[in-house]
Amino acid sequence: MINPITTIPVDHFFRGAFSIDMVLITFIDDELKVLLQEKNEPPHEGELGLPGKLILPIEDTDQAMNNFMTDLIGTNEFYKKQLKAFSDVNRHPMGRVISFAYYGLIHFEKFNEPLAEGLSWRNAYEVSGLCFDHDRILKSVLKRFRKGLLRHPTVFEILPKKFILSDVKRIYDLAFDTELDSPNFRKMIRKSDLIYPTGEIKHEKDFIGRPPKFYSFNRERYLGEFKERIHFYF
Amino acid sequence: MINPITTIPVDHFFRGAFSIDMVLITFIDDELKVLLQEKNEPPHEGELGLPGKLILPIEDTDQAMNNFMTDLIGTNEFYKKQLKAFSDVNRHPMGRVISFAYYGLIHFEKFNEPLAEGLSWRNAYEVSGLCFDHDRILKSVLKRFRKGLLRHPTVFEILPKKFILSDVKRIYDLAFDTELDSPNFRKMIRKSDLIYPTGEIKHEKDFIGRPPKFYSFNRERYLGEFKERIHFYF
Repeated sequence: MINPITTIPVDHFFRGAFSIDMVLITFIDDELKVLLQEKNEPPHEGELGLPGKLILPIEDTDQAMNNFMTDLIGTNEFYKKQLKAFSDVNRHPMGRVISFAYYGLIHFEKFNEPLAEGLSWRNAYEVSGLCFDHDRILKSVLKRFRKGLLRHPTVFEILPKKFILSDVKRIYDLAFDTELDSPNFRKMIRKSDLIYPTGEIKHEKDFIGRPPKFYSFNRERYLGEFKERIHFYF
Repeated sequence: MINPITTIPVDHFFRGAFSIDMVLITFIDDELKVLLQEKNEPPHEGELGLPGKLILPIEDTDQAMNNFMTDLIGTNEFYKKQLKAFSDVNRHPMGRVISFAYYGLIHFEKFNEPLAEGLSWRNAYEVSGLCFDHDRILKSVLKRFRKGLLRHPTVFEILPKKFILSDVKRIYDLAFDTELDSPNFRKMIRKSDLIYPTGEIKHEKDFIGRPPKFYSFNRERYLGEFKERIHFYF
């Protein structure tokens, strides 16, 4: 069969492969970190990159990603979105491979520890020199992450169920490479209808001063009435 | 070469093709409409579907889409986002084809009229029975469109530069299948920092009562200070 538009035989179109790549972000040790994997296949053996794999002919992209993450870290139950495809013609040395990049947010209570061999969490804003076009994919996800923080309660996806306000602020400071004014930030965030104090207090060893309060995010309320309300923010 | 994870020869992965499909939405004749195309290739000759094509081995997805839209309607200068890929294993009769669906918003001042042969604008909420999985892609875009309307000023992408408030309300009513309270809606939207009256009035033939005022969207302001401001809406 000839494609009538291009006069290229249709077979020529059927020479591509598909891959998935995950940019999984978390907040540990006071830093925003990304999950990286040491590659064990040529041509990038021994190099660091985003966790990913070729998609089997019998998988769709979400199935491929869900199974892959369960194998990798023991869960696929976390916030994830498929991003724009990365489709530069020469991005892969083995041939035409279009990658479906995913953007994932997880908190440290959710994944298996210790991590499997070859996996590690690295500072998301300091890492570079990743294999393939993974520096570019990471950069694109960090931009999306920042954009999400401006309008959506995505920050709570990388925090545990009970969190303290200074950790929320810390994440914004890191993502925007700034130092927000602490009293104003606390005032803004406390006004939210979707956050409530749990009544508990965080006891830290050697902490001087008033111990911080724990807060929680009211996900049910957000997913219920809030999410479907029209907000003329603009 | 054998893929070490799966023991499937790597060649077997390189049998896929890529396509692009555009869901272009506009507001004409008081309705939200989607651009459809009559297919002229087997196995769907004569059927209606979303405009789309297979991606050439030498194109990336965005290039493919931009060139395609310029050929189709004379412009690629409109709001568009790549959505999640549609990757059901058996979605295409010719083999494994993953489609990159795009979500586009355009206003009627922008595209070429009359439309080329085979193209037509149909009511986005009434059309069904499209070829391939295009009903599903359309449904998914309409969900995304609605979600966008809740938080972002996307409504102005399908309105002309100068618009009247009742058209803004009409778009929300259609997208949410509701009838918003008019005085409240006007109050809400007039409070926005990003909309201003142009000082002009819309003169309509046979219109009884006070003629409506034209408004404009301040895109520069939105893209400038507004877009990068942190909004604790939640």
